[in-house]
Amino acid sequence: MKGEIIGTMTKEFTDEEKNGLYKAIHSRRDVRSHFSSRSIEEEILSKILNAGHHAPSVGFSQPWNFILIKDPQTKRKIKNSFELEKENSSRLIEEPKKSKYLSFKLEGILESPVNLCVTYDPSKFGPFVIGRSTIPEAGLYSVCCAIQNLWLAARTEGVGVGWVSILSNDVLKDVLDLPNHIVPVAYLCLGYVDQFEPKPDLETAGWLPRLGLKDVIYFEKWDDKKNLNWKNIQDIIKTNLDYA
Amino acid sequence: MKGEIIGTMTKEFTDEEKNGLYKAIHSRRDVRSHFSSRSIEEEILSKILNAGHHAPSVGFSQPWNFILIKDPQTKRKIKNSFELEKENSSRLIEEPKKSKYLSFKLEGILESPVNLCVTYDPSKFGPFVIGRSTIPEAGLYSVCCAIQNLWLAARTEGVGVGWVSILSNDVLKDVLDLPNHIVPVAYLCLGYVDQFEPKPDLETAGWLPRLGLKDVIYFEKWDDKKNLNWKNIQDIIKTNLDYA
Repeated sequence: MKGEIIGTMTKEFTDEEKNGLYKAIHSRRDVRSHFSSRSIEEEILSKILNAGHHAPSVGFSQPWNFILIKDPQTKRKIKNSFELEKENSSRLIEEPKKSKYLSFKLEGILESPVNLCVTYDPSKFGPFVIGRSTIPEAGLYSVCCAIQNLWLAARTEGVGVGWVSILSNDVLKDVLDLPNHIVPVAYLCLGYVDQFEPKPDLETAGWLPRLGLKDVIYFEKWDDKKNLNWKNIQDIIKTNLDYA
Repeated sequence: MKGEIIGTMTKEFTDEEKNGLYKAIHSRRDVRSHFSSRSIEEEILSKILNAGHHAPSVGFSQPWNFILIKDPQTKRKIKNSFELEKENSSRLIEEPKKSKYLSFKLEGILESPVNLCVTYDPSKFGPFVIGRSTIPEAGLYSVCCAIQNLWLAARTEGVGVGWVSILSNDVLKDVLDLPNHIVPVAYLCLGYVDQFEPKPDLETAGWLPRLGLKDVIYFEKWDDKKNLNWKNIQDIIKTNLDYA
């Protein structure tokens, strides 16, 4: 695998290579259903995890760990936590949103062949980590970059990933024997899928709309959308580059 | 630009497209020096920001904002904060590490043509966001996924990105007029570079080593490296897929 990548590690990207990256970004989905039971080949799973491991990290601290899970008993315990927390969360909203929320399929814990917990270890290479003294959260942020890397790699391999954040981290710590100082960041469900939806499920369901690019960009200061030094890009983003 | 992407949004990735994603991941660097003063074309900058905007977000809340900065006065203020915080941090370590740390070039705030602050807005589409009730940090995590997306997109365009986490968020909030509830997550420096280093600067400098993939993966539970149900992947990862 080494030669395969190094051989093409030139500075420039071909149009097709570039397109591969953008295609992964724009067709990646949070997958909660329709997982195939087909197992993920170990070579592919390694490539996906290696993509995560090559994320940027504050002070090169590489503060992530990846816990692979397929034990049905573990999955069942996590699923129970999900069900309890989904029920708890539903008490925070009124009808008709409540029923709509409860009707959504939001995880594929039992159906996906591989579950993956990604954790943050603040003690790794510590206590002094370059870039983490003033902003301690930077360590956690590195772990999130690793998650996005592996999510995109999975997409190119046809593997769907779903992030389950409706569960108790205390349960997770208990079930996975995490030491006290370890922070569970993500609980992911991985498995092959036959297709990736053209849009996020919550957009399709009309729960929330996709914001335009122009709605999320400011110039020089918070809330400044019209700064004259940025006129050209304002003209471009108002046309909305809204592919999937 | 719409057709350009949609036209190739088939399920499968060609080998070259797949390679494009892995190449971006493995050759992406945190860039702190050698920025070209050449400005980034607005079309390219839009594509990079749009990649960020198409990150996954908890409950489809899209809680990010991107503040583009090129005002030299703003950059100078941020640079001052960096210098102060770098000095403060250096007091946490002893010689000879201290001198080594102080000798590192850790940011390109003034030299890079574009600075970018990425922020988190917990109030967007709130207060109830699906998946954020039990784990409120999930909103912040979404913003980090957006940062990694835009970092990879920049890499394919030949644009280097450096994340400066040695600075005061209070200064940042003040200089950029951020409302109280807005969290600055990243301050990034963007600009074309002639080349991307084969390894992270801190690895090259011998500050810290790259961990092996086998060092960061556990099976079923924390610290279990030998679970017999995962024998095949253990054999694969011990050979170390260590391309740059």
